[in-house]
Amino acid sequence: MKAFIINIGDELLIGQVTNFNASWMAEQLNIIGVDVVRINVISDKEDEILNALGEAEKNADVIVLTGGLGPTNDDITKETLCRFFNTHLVFDQATFDDISGFFKQRSVTVTETNRKQAEVPAGCKIIRNVSGTAPGLWFEKNGKIFVATPGVPYEMKTMMSTLILPLIEQRLSGDTIVHKTILTQGVGESFLADMIVDWENNLPENIRLAYLPSPGLVRLRLSARGADKAMLKRSIDEQVKKLQGIISQHIYGYDSETMEQIIGKLLIEQGKSVVTAESCTGGYIAHAITRIPGSSAYFKGSVVAYSNEIKEEFLGVQHETLVKYGAVSEETVKEMATNARIKLHADYAISISGIAGPDGGTEEKPVGLVWIAVASAENIIAQKFQFGNIRMVNIERASVTALNMLRKEIIRSGK
Amino acid sequence: MKAFIINIGDELLIGQVTNFNASWMAEQLNIIGVDVVRINVISDKEDEILNALGEAEKNADVIVLTGGLGPTNDDITKETLCRFFNTHLVFDQATFDDISGFFKQRSVTVTETNRKQAEVPAGCKIIRNVSGTAPGLWFEKNGKIFVATPGVPYEMKTMMSTLILPLIEQRLSGDTIVHKTILTQGVGESFLADMIVDWENNLPENIRLAYLPSPGLVRLRLSARGADKAMLKRSIDEQVKKLQGIISQHIYGYDSETMEQIIGKLLIEQGKSVVTAESCTGGYIAHAITRIPGSSAYFKGSVVAYSNEIKEEFLGVQHETLVKYGAVSEETVKEMATNARIKLHADYAISISGIAGPDGGTEEKPVGLVWIAVASAENIIAQKFQFGNIRMVNIERASVTALNMLRKEIIRSGK
Repeated sequence: MKAFIINIGDELLIGQVTNFNASWMAEQLNIIGVDVVRINVISDKEDEILNALGEAEKNADVIVLTGGLGPTNDDITKETLCRFFNTHLVFDQATFDDISGFFKQRSVTVTETNRKQAEVPAGCKIIRNVSGTAPGLWFEKNGKIFVATPGVPYEMKTMMSTLILPLIEQRLSGDTIVHKTILTQGVGESFLADMIVDWENNLPENIRLAYLPSPGLVRLRLSARGADKAMLKRSIDEQVKKLQGIISQHIYGYDSETMEQIIGKLLIEQGKSVVTAESCTGGYIAHAITRIPGSSAYFKGSVVAYSNEIKEEFLGVQHETLVKYGAVSEETVKEMATNARIKLHADYAISISGIAGPDGGTEEKPVGLVWIAVASAENIIAQKFQFGNIRMVNIERASVTALNMLRKEIIRSGK
Repeated sequence: MKAFIINIGDELLIGQVTNFNASWMAEQLNIIGVDVVRINVISDKEDEILNALGEAEKNADVIVLTGGLGPTNDDITKETLCRFFNTHLVFDQATFDDISGFFKQRSVTVTETNRKQAEVPAGCKIIRNVSGTAPGLWFEKNGKIFVATPGVPYEMKTMMSTLILPLIEQRLSGDTIVHKTILTQGVGESFLADMIVDWENNLPENIRLAYLPSPGLVRLRLSARGADKAMLKRSIDEQVKKLQGIISQHIYGYDSETMEQIIGKLLIEQGKSVVTAESCTGGYIAHAITRIPGSSAYFKGSVVAYSNEIKEEFLGVQHETLVKYGAVSEETVKEMATNARIKLHADYAISISGIAGPDGGTEEKPVGLVWIAVASAENIIAQKFQFGNIRMVNIERASVTALNMLRKEIIRSGK
C-alpha cells in the first residue's frame, strides 16, 4: 500500500517551520506497513492543492493531508476538498457540540468564526478533534483513502494515533509487517553498529534493521515482512533474543516506552519516590519526569541550582567543596544528591552539574563536561561524561543519561 | 521567480531523518526573493526522479535537488540527470584533482569508487565541493535552472551559500518578497481573527496574512510581494503599525525571537535576575529559560514543588494556606512567588500551580485550572487561567503565559 503525504502551508515553504509533521507521519505510516512514496509540501492555494490531490490520486492508495483546516481566511483546505470531491459544506451539529464544549471548558464564548468550523464537506466521515476545534476529514473514492488533519502537531498526532492509523491498518491487505524496537542508551550509533555487525549481516532476508538515533539514545527497529503474522513475530523474537545476548547492558526498554515511563513504573512497583537537584540541565530532568501523567505519585520535586548560592543554601553543598573542587565535580554532585534526597524526603535523588555550552568551558573543564550522581538510602554513585558543544543536545543527552543511571540503581537496589 | 525543491532519499520517506535541508533552502531562497512553491520528497528511484523533474520543469524556473550524489550503488541522481538532459557521464580531471586533494589531506588513498565521483554529466557546470567529494551540478534548459547538490547538510549549505544562491540572485528579475512576523500571546487564533477582521480585509492585494498557532501563542506572518523592496518594506511597516493600534497589548515580539530570548534581553538590560517556583509545570519554565545560552547571567534557580511538603519547607507556604485554600489557589501562588523571590535572592519570581491533567480535576477545580503569580520587589500579581485537558499542551501554554506575565512586569517595573 502506497501513501502520499501532502503538507499544506506557506510557513513550510518559506522555511519558517521545519516539517516535523512529515517525518512523524512517515514514521508512523511505515510502522503499520504503509510505504510513503512521496511527501509534497505546497502552498495553501486552490490550484496547488487540486493539482497535488490529482497527482496523489494517480500514484497512491492513501493520501494524508495536513494544514489549512483552521477558522481563518487563509485556510482553504476544506473548500478545496469539496471542489475535488464535487460536494459542498454542511453544518454538522455533533462537530458544533464538540467545538462549543471545547470553548465552554475554557469559559469562552463561541464566535461566528468558530461556528464556521462546524461546517464539513457533505458525505465525508468526521474525525473528532479532542485537542482542538478543527475536525479531521476522511474521504474515500475508488478504493482510495484521503484524510485531512489540522497542521497543529499535537492535534494531528492525536487524530492519527487514535483513529486514522488504526483505520488504515485495518484496510491493509497482502503482506503484514511486524515491528519491534529495541531501545539502547549510552552507545553511539557507529559503535553500536560495530558491536552487532555479525548479527546484522546474518539477519533473515525478510527482516530489516533501522538505526534511529536521538541525543543519548539509539533505537534499533526491526521490521519483518511476510504473510504469516505469528511466524513473523517468532522470527523477530528470535533475533531480539540474539541481540540481547550481545548488548543487553545497553538496552533499557522496548517499542514506544520512554525512559521516564519505565522509571515511573519501577517507582510505583516499589512504592518509592525520586527528586532531582539540577544545575546544567536547568529543570529538564524534572520536566521529563513530570510530563508523564500520574508522576505526582512518585515525584516530589526538584531544586534547580544554577547559582552556587542556591547549591549551598538549598542543597547544603559545603562552601569549601565548591571552592576546592568547583561546581562541576564529583564532590559537588555527590553532596547535591545525598542532601537533596534527605532534604526533599525521597528514596532516590539525581544530581547533575556540567557545562552545557556553547561557552563557559576551560581547558581543564571543557564545554560538554558533565558530572552525574544518583543517591539511594544505602548507596551513592557518581560518573563523569564528556558530551559535545551543542547546548540543547547536551541538556537532552545528560538528562537521559542521568535517568538511565537512576533506572539501573532502582533495579539494583530493588533486588 | 518560482522554485521547486526536490529532496531525494528514503531516509526522509521513512521518517528517520527530518527534512531540515528543505526548511533551510526554502528560507534562503525566500530571502533572495525566490518563491518556493513546492517541496517534493521522493525515493531514489529513477522513475520517481524523472517524474519529479518533469513536474518541476512545467511549474518552476529554478529546481534545486538534494541527495543521491554519493559514491554507493543506491545513489542514482547523476545517472538520472543524464537521462533527463539526454547526455552522458564524462571523466572530469579538475573534479578528480579536488577529490584526490580531499583524501590526501586526510591521508587516505583514493579508491576506484571515489574515482567514479569524478565522472560528471557532459555539458553541465560543475560546482566544486570544498567540504566533501561529490560535486554539485548546474544545468540550464529553456531558461530554467536545475541544480543538484549532495544531501549532506554541511556540503549542501556551503555550495548554496557560496555559489548557487548568488548565481540565482543574479538571474532574478521581477518580484521580491518581504516578510514580517508579529508574535502574539494569550489570544486564540479565532478570537484574534475576529479582532483584526477589518484590518485583514483591508490589506493591500500584494500582502498576504498567515496565522501560525502553537500552545498559548499565535504568530501572524505578513508577506508582501512586488518589484521594489524598499517600498514593500514601507508598506509592511505601515500595516504593522495599524495592527499594533488594534492588538498592541497582545504583541510580545517580532520575527524569530522567542519569549525566553526577549525576557533574557530585558533582564540583562536591567541587570536583574529571575527564579521560578513551579508546581504543575514541573520545571518546564526553568528549562525554557535555561535553554537560552548565557541564561546563567540572570537565572539563579528554581524550586519545583510537586509535593505540599516541599511547598512548605522550601518555599515557606503556610500550612494553613494549603489547608484553607488548597495548593491551586491565589493565596498559595502568591506565597510561593513572594517567598521564592526572597529565598532564592532574585529580583523577580514566577510561581505556578495548577492541574495539568489528564486526571486529578474536581468540579470546583477542573483539569486545566492554573494559577500564576509574578513577584517583584514592590509588586505581586496573580491571575487565574482555565486551559484544556491535554497535559503537555497545558504545561507549554501555562509556561508561555507565565513568561509573558513576567515580561510585562519587567517592562512595567523598569519604567
